[in-house]
Amino acid sequence: MPLSSKKNEELGGAGLRGQSAGSTALCTVGKTGTGLTYRGYDITDLANNAQFEEVAHLLLRGHLPNQKELDEYKTRLTSLRGLPAELKQALELIPASAHPMDVMRTGCSVLGNLEQEMSFDQQLDATERMLALFPAIICYWYRFSHDGVRIDTQDQSEPCIGGYFLKMLTDKEPTEIHKQVMHCSLILYAEHEFNASTFAARVCASTLSDIHSCITAAIGTLRGPLHGGANEAAMEMIQDWQTPEEAENNIMQMLANKDKIMGFGHAIYRESDPRNALIKRWSKELSLAVGDTHLYAVSERVESVMKREKGLFCNADFFHASAYHFMDIPTKLFTPIFVMSRLTGWAAHVYEQRANNRIIRPSADYTGPDHQDWVDIESR
Amino acid sequence: MPLSSKKNEELGGAGLRGQSAGSTALCTVGKTGTGLTYRGYDITDLANNAQFEEVAHLLLRGHLPNQKELDEYKTRLTSLRGLPAELKQALELIPASAHPMDVMRTGCSVLGNLEQEMSFDQQLDATERMLALFPAIICYWYRFSHDGVRIDTQDQSEPCIGGYFLKMLTDKEPTEIHKQVMHCSLILYAEHEFNASTFAARVCASTLSDIHSCITAAIGTLRGPLHGGANEAAMEMIQDWQTPEEAENNIMQMLANKDKIMGFGHAIYRESDPRNALIKRWSKELSLAVGDTHLYAVSERVESVMKREKGLFCNADFFHASAYHFMDIPTKLFTPIFVMSRLTGWAAHVYEQRANNRIIRPSADYTGPDHQDWVDIESR
Repeated sequence: MPLSSKKNEELGGAGLRGQSAGSTALCTVGKTGTGLTYRGYDITDLANNAQFEEVAHLLLRGHLPNQKELDEYKTRLTSLRGLPAELKQALELIPASAHPMDVMRTGCSVLGNLEQEMSFDQQLDATERMLALFPAIICYWYRFSHDGVRIDTQDQSEPCIGGYFLKMLTDKEPTEIHKQVMHCSLILYAEHEFNASTFAARVCASTLSDIHSCITAAIGTLRGPLHGGANEAAMEMIQDWQTPEEAENNIMQMLANKDKIMGFGHAIYRESDPRNALIKRWSKELSLAVGDTHLYAVSERVESVMKREKGLFCNADFFHASAYHFMDIPTKLFTPIFVMSRLTGWAAHVYEQRANNRIIRPSADYTGPDHQDWVDIESR
Repeated sequence: MPLSSKKNEELGGAGLRGQSAGSTALCTVGKTGTGLTYRGYDITDLANNAQFEEVAHLLLRGHLPNQKELDEYKTRLTSLRGLPAELKQALELIPASAHPMDVMRTGCSVLGNLEQEMSFDQQLDATERMLALFPAIICYWYRFSHDGVRIDTQDQSEPCIGGYFLKMLTDKEPTEIHKQVMHCSLILYAEHEFNASTFAARVCASTLSDIHSCITAAIGTLRGPLHGGANEAAMEMIQDWQTPEEAENNIMQMLANKDKIMGFGHAIYRESDPRNALIKRWSKELSLAVGDTHLYAVSERVESVMKREKGLFCNADFFHASAYHFMDIPTKLFTPIFVMSRLTGWAAHVYEQRANNRIIRPSADYTGPDHQDWVDIESR
């Protein structure tokens, strides 16, 4: 057995699980007693008290803003919402049948052509432009391809990113509770240490590539059903169940069939996901606000059956499904919201990687054939 | 010191250097006595005897083709050269000032919207479509943005990818020697184990994302100057030196200034890069064919000075610079050629990752602040 393979086994096996791939000052996940922290702040404190723009400022600029800084930050971000004409034209070329994450990935990539990051001095400006534009990109494409409408993304009536997204999507003023839920949701998804999409961004950054390449790589990685798609999959699972009893029967059948149930368990957390209680509370409040007769009850029953039968807890994604649904967000736009939020964590990790870089270039265990002699094509 | 950090030190430090991140049957790099192998075949045998399409078949379909298989493979690839209308329109939106690697990344991403990989059964078809289209994408954009010409990419007069690229780029029939050099070059760049761009593709694939996301991530990662940009940087360095003496004086000055000299040394190879001799031979032949009076001599002098002064050898990139230059390829298109070639290795790694997958999710050493108490915004 080659040495590296032996090491790999000792370190917990495939997928680099449990192996350190670098250092970060941004986040702890599953550290005893704290759950999830961003720059030392507990996720519960942030989700219960902050606006998303405060957390973006914390991650990207290093500290929680005071009132004056926050006001200036929001003014700056709202001023950056105009889509370049070429980007709008590119989005109009993408059919309604496209995967919304392919649209996000492409929108980011096109932007990198039009507003290239020429030096790392521009990394913060480039990030904040993306922070302002990502809701505009997905809503412009969605409304054009689905409704035939060219929306004006420069609207400044909603100063916060979550409310702005809802306004662009629905053309209606979002309610107070919807805006609060969006703050909470965007905060919960903002950062999560060396998850796969963030790690992809850091691998890209380690070649000293530009920030649009790094974020494009991260979006493509988040797109995978083992990563960003869990809340969509959870919604598709629960949407047709009309009563808690029907939900329980279906879950029991799925467990008997050994089907994968999305929205439960986690690669790092062992006992609970600290984000679950925070979004679950909002799902319940929205359920009451919209007069929901069954979806929240169905979700709670699924949670209790999974606990009873498998000892598994809800992760951040499960109650996000019902919460987003209560706000009339189409299921296929759930993961693009994740992008709008996680952009802050991805970019902060890119800055870290650049500040203390060595190209990320691991080794591999070779399992292929030994030396093969060349054979001319006539003799094959 | 946390345990993971200690392990990291034992394993050789940052960038996962020397750590196994998985297994592969595709490639060995720097294994004693063999240098570089693709599925067990020595790179020297491949580069001296094969066409690039044979190597693509080896990497993507698992074996070297016989004559009938090779003929069918080339017929199939040439039939796939038509750009979708929406992709042409998207490329026309990108200005001449854009970075050509941003164009490649965007072209691949747009294609993923138009021809989505709906299941992994389609991975080979999707890859071979990209193999046929990548030269078309870069040449269509380049000729439209720089010359105002809309080229017909469905041209089938050149059955091989390298010759087709030269034809699309220059609108002239490529010479025999140019076609041979392109075969060699594309073979040398096709695959290189867990280099950063390939590893980015595998991280993306490990979330079970689609292949266009994986390849888009790889292109963005290859774009970085520490990875794919070395042959362009080497060309920019040597292009103004008129004599070997001028080259030597400049290199000595750069070494005294501790400037980075691109195209030398390697993260894995310790004594030599087996690809250097193979492309160097073609650079010399091209130099004679075009009546070059100084560039090859300048390149050789740089090689000998670097060996004498620093003990460093040329890697694959250094003599690629002069070879491409002798074929009148604009310097800024050097790295897109790398993409056309490495696509084969990237895709083969994506197939491997999918066939035996665990999500790639390493840990990190935390270096940030301990718990921070929440402070209301009024008190900050």
